[in-house]
Amino acid sequence: MRIDSEPSLNPSDYEFSHTVRVRFSETDAMGIVHHSRYLPYLEEARVEYLRHIGHPYHEIRDAGVEMAVLEAFVQYRQPLKFDDVVNVNVAMGTITRATFQMTYLLTVDDEIRATGVTAHGALTTEGNATRLPDWFRDFTPPARAT
Amino acid sequence: MRIDSEPSLNPSDYEFSHTVRVRFSETDAMGIVHHSRYLPYLEEARVEYLRHIGHPYHEIRDAGVEMAVLEAFVQYRQPLKFDDVVNVNVAMGTITRATFQMTYLLTVDDEIRATGVTAHGALTTEGNATRLPDWFRDFTPPARAT
Amino acid sequence: MRIDSEPSLNPSDYEFSHTVRVRFSETDAMGIVHHSRYLPYLEEARVEYLRHIGHPYHEIRDAGVEMAVLEAFVQYRQPLKFDDVVNVNVAMGTITRATFQMTYLLTVDDEIRATGVTAHGALTTEGNATRLPDWFRDFTPPARAT
Amino acid sequence: MRIDSEPSLNPSDYEFSHTVRVRFSETDAMGIVHHSRYLPYLEEARVEYLRHIGHPYHEIRDAGVEMAVLEAFVQYRQPLKFDDVVNVNVAMGTITRATFQMTYLLTVDDEIRATGVTAHGALTTEGNATRLPDWFRDFTPPARAT
Repeated sequence: MRIDSEPSLNPSDYEFSHTVRVRFSETDAMGIVHHSRYLPYLEEARVEYLRHIGHPYHEIRDAGVEMAVLEAFVQYRQPLKFDDVVNVNVAMGTITRATFQMTYLLTVDDEIRATGVTAHGALTTEGNATRLPDWFRDFTPPARAT
Repeated sequence: MRIDSEPSLNPSDYEFSHTVRVRFSETDAMGIVHHSRYLPYLEEARVEYLRHIGHPYHEIRDAGVEMAVLEAFVQYRQPLKFDDVVNVNVAMGTITRATFQMTYLLTVDDEIRATGVTAHGALTTEGNATRLPDWFRDFTPPARAT
Repeated sequence: MRIDSEPSLNPSDYEFSHTVRVRFSETDAMGIVHHSRYLPYLEEARVEYLRHIGHPYHEIRDAGVEMAVLEAFVQYRQPLKFDDVVNVNVAMGTITRATFQMTYLLTVDDEIRATGVTAHGALTTEGNATRLPDWFRDFTPPARAT
Repeated sequence: MRIDSEPSLNPSDYEFSHTVRVRFSETDAMGIVHHSRYLPYLEEARVEYLRHIGHPYHEIRDAGVEMAVLEAFVQYRQPLKFDDVVNVNVAMGTITRATFQMTYLLTVDDEIRATGVTAHGALTTEGNATRLPDWFRDFTPPARAT
């Protein structure tokens, strides 16, 4: 397991937050959001994080680099329900030459619902591992948006 | 609306049938399969139909033709539930120079659950409308698989 | 086919509009939004429409009425792509004692991408058809939100 | 992190295997299966495993026990593509009084594509933690199906 970043349970440790409202189509017969549906929430928040720091995903792909998901981990602490407004807090985790991790804390009305970590690797469009874009090397997380 | 093919309510009017078992992840908080999840069932059955008639989707894409979905219609008659084994009956509908339609009848234990129709158009890989592959011109539906 | 409401191609004919941004997870290997993923967009816009007119979905369900999807139709005119900001325009269509229809026009930067219609029926929690809530009887669409 | 079971890279270490064929609707704009779509594959295989050992999910739910997903981990090693026939190998992992883990190895033509682990907890229908059904206490994995 490559993942070694630990998601904090304190929202103020995260430098970015993105809001999603739970769709009915994301619920399952237990009446809660299906566990597979958290990963698109993390991805949507990650895309907005990259836009926020001035490196939108389009720019990365236009530079010929794909960001493959290498690993994903989610801990489901309290269920999400239809129409919940979910704060997906995002922080950059460990960065190496060719990979980076991001950590996530999902809250609803300041209550913790889930945490997660994803690990990503840079790939050429042919699918071979490559270095991350240069800006990653000296990356400093932005101050928390308020 | 381009769709003019009418799905029969009689399984024996369909030349092909494909079975899917409902996944838990396809249910919603009403305890039934979410209405958006029928379209992947139709698509899976369509892919198997094309394989069955000797023209697998890979072959069509390798020939530089994409099959875009132009229209989709589903009528939900009785709900599908988790673990249901669904027979997706498929028949070719109206064929024109550049488009074709397919009709669908979904049954569980011989009970009708849904019908559907999809309309498809041939596109070049640049996204322009083009003629269907030649074999479509003289297409004769196969005898019903038993 | 129960659907008889016709979706207008003019956004100003719609009394409500809701915005969704396309997620990467909603795209497919053709590089566009998968056709099954439009229905959750329509549903999300429908939920916001009901909230907008003061009858949120929770209220309807709390009153013991489920709104089943009876039919759905989508016409795909131009593809949606990752990160597109989609305006989902919504209008109430035909209303009967036990059913209603809604029409949809999806645009990106004022360009038409898709239209749709859904038909819905009121059900008791046991799954039997029932009358729509009283407020539907005298429903007058709101003035268009601007 | 509760997960401590380690998925083996050797298919013969798994006592059960279930096959899924990749749907087009599960691919994304990178041309591969979206990373969120692996979890429904694991779930489908888990459901078949429980059926295989004589304790179908319906039976567990009928006994008033829900199996909540507590944690999920996936390692994506090589991409899955449209139409791939995927062997999802499943093994029971750590079992406690109230939780169990399962490990997964996904292969295509004997090539390793992904591994995963899920952790599950027994809940009453009110959502409170409860003991696993009795048969779990003395669970012995079945001999590998061949």
